[in-house]
Amino acid sequence: MNAAHLRSSQFHILALCAMIAFSAPAAAQTEPLSSWNDGPAKQAILAFVKDTTTQGSANFVPPAERIVTFDQDGTLWVEHPMYSQVMYCLEHVPDVVAKKPELKNVEPLKTVLSGNREAIAKLTMPDLMKILAATLTGMPVETFQAEVKKWIAEAKDPRWKRPYTDLTYQPMKEVLEYLRANGFKTYIVTGGGQDFVRVYADGVYGIPPEQVVGTAGGTKYGYGKDGKPFLTKEPKLLLNDNDAGKPEGIHLMIGRRPVAAFGNSTGDQQMLEYTKAGDGARLAILVLHDDAKREYAYGPAQGLPATKVGTFTQALYDEAKKDGWIVISIKDDWKRIFAFE
Amino acid sequence: MNAAHLRSSQFHILALCAMIAFSAPAAAQTEPLSSWNDGPAKQAILAFVKDTTTQGSANFVPPAERIVTFDQDGTLWVEHPMYSQVMYCLEHVPDVVAKKPELKNVEPLKTVLSGNREAIAKLTMPDLMKILAATLTGMPVETFQAEVKKWIAEAKDPRWKRPYTDLTYQPMKEVLEYLRANGFKTYIVTGGGQDFVRVYADGVYGIPPEQVVGTAGGTKYGYGKDGKPFLTKEPKLLLNDNDAGKPEGIHLMIGRRPVAAFGNSTGDQQMLEYTKAGDGARLAILVLHDDAKREYAYGPAQGLPATKVGTFTQALYDEAKKDGWIVISIKDDWKRIFAFE
Repeated sequence: MNAAHLRSSQFHILALCAMIAFSAPAAAQTEPLSSWNDGPAKQAILAFVKDTTTQGSANFVPPAERIVTFDQDGTLWVEHPMYSQVMYCLEHVPDVVAKKPELKNVEPLKTVLSGNREAIAKLTMPDLMKILAATLTGMPVETFQAEVKKWIAEAKDPRWKRPYTDLTYQPMKEVLEYLRANGFKTYIVTGGGQDFVRVYADGVYGIPPEQVVGTAGGTKYGYGKDGKPFLTKEPKLLLNDNDAGKPEGIHLMIGRRPVAAFGNSTGDQQMLEYTKAGDGARLAILVLHDDAKREYAYGPAQGLPATKVGTFTQALYDEAKKDGWIVISIKDDWKRIFAFE
Repeated sequence: MNAAHLRSSQFHILALCAMIAFSAPAAAQTEPLSSWNDGPAKQAILAFVKDTTTQGSANFVPPAERIVTFDQDGTLWVEHPMYSQVMYCLEHVPDVVAKKPELKNVEPLKTVLSGNREAIAKLTMPDLMKILAATLTGMPVETFQAEVKKWIAEAKDPRWKRPYTDLTYQPMKEVLEYLRANGFKTYIVTGGGQDFVRVYADGVYGIPPEQVVGTAGGTKYGYGKDGKPFLTKEPKLLLNDNDAGKPEGIHLMIGRRPVAAFGNSTGDQQMLEYTKAGDGARLAILVLHDDAKREYAYGPAQGLPATKVGTFTQALYDEAKKDGWIVISIKDDWKRIFAFE
């Protein structure tokens, strides 16, 4: 066989492979979204993927533009009664104060150290930002990554007595996989700390660090005693990735408008609006926490009191209905919630 | 054939395909880097790729971690005598002033409008930032993208009388392709405007918007008269992606330390240091503009006067030699510079 023949024959095998490779995911995944009940939410996701990935469809989206964004807390994993990153911060304070005893009597660290649960529960976002700044400023980014990695492997949710990473929603993990199998690039766009979520997102969700957008602080480049350069964390806030900060963060970090977005609270409202306002088929989805028995039920949209996490107002519910967003009812739409069930 | 057999046979074909697919790029690209002379720079690139992608090599890098960053101006395309983005800004001023006549007598716009080349050449970076703020603030990001797209299609370099996008370095485009064919993810990390470069980077370099990191301003989320949400450009500077801003920007936007980095000036020094300081095999490369005949020769490292663009100091040259960076001599290492030659 001469070189030209070899190339030609390789080309034919490659073409055949490409056909098989592209049809394989659909063939292998005999039933996508198997943890979902066969309701309108599941149907909307399946219809959207079919509509945007079928060659010749009026709504076909080229693979490079198949960007989908997911909020994390309350959308991909449990956020109630408190974001796990907040737990990390609080549990971290004694360590920090052991190293910097001068912080012992400085608020809000003093309150955290008191162990007074009622007082701790009243801490506001600015209080938590102060704790973050006090505990993280000047820390090399690799040290922070190592500490989060250790914490996330050991810490346990108080209700299920399991690692937080076990409390990811199995139906949403199936959506992530299903979208990726159909050529979509999945991003996390979280109000949580970008550096925090990046530590475990690849292992837990199959989402690499460069596809995690979150609330981000500055870093500072410097040199160690050995002359080696390294980055340390700075108290400067670069991106508050909540509310309007989500579309702004998407523009900054991705530079394309998503074709689909998933959220669960008013903090995701602008991301969903921005996604839905693009041309062609668009998917905007909100998770409604309405299953007090298997998970939690909370939020004013169900006539329940507002909580510190995941506020789902009646106005958000009305906007969703008016603008054709899909609302997932955990109670009705999810056959099972966690992989361990 | 039953389903199990079908799956098994598909699996074997897929395995075969995978082998062919992974070996194909090397086979098809009979001579990678064909616009390079066979000198130490070409050899260093080939050796690095072999070392980091050969299974079993002590320096093997998993595909997910194969991040390579490239400066743009002076590294991927001509930057002399002035960055093309600066040309864009200057050429754009009359349009802006036509729409906002109150800016006519405001400096530095007044100087630009005077047409006095000598005075224009003296404008400083802060002056240019003022021009950017005056011309871009409040502009919807899509309008900006459309304007850059139009400008980049029409504007011509004064020396070659060709579009700026023709003045990309063919040898570097071959490096981009060669790295991607070997599983590397190629990023631009530029001091230029992120929103500017993202408009054409995919078409010109095969680098999608989400893999372009650059100097970035804020945006503001709002609603149009029709109730549709959109983002407008804000004068706030979020990331000055030069010098120490490059590794800081890489951490912010990518979240991984590159294994290889390419630059050409002191603005790239920290990015190259940061890249080189990681574990395992690392590649740090500087382009030296030493070909006055075919392109330009400039910079103190050759005993030439400092210029406004791409400062290559003697200290940078010394650091490169000391730390084992590779210096590309355009004169000696590049067989041809542009695709049109």
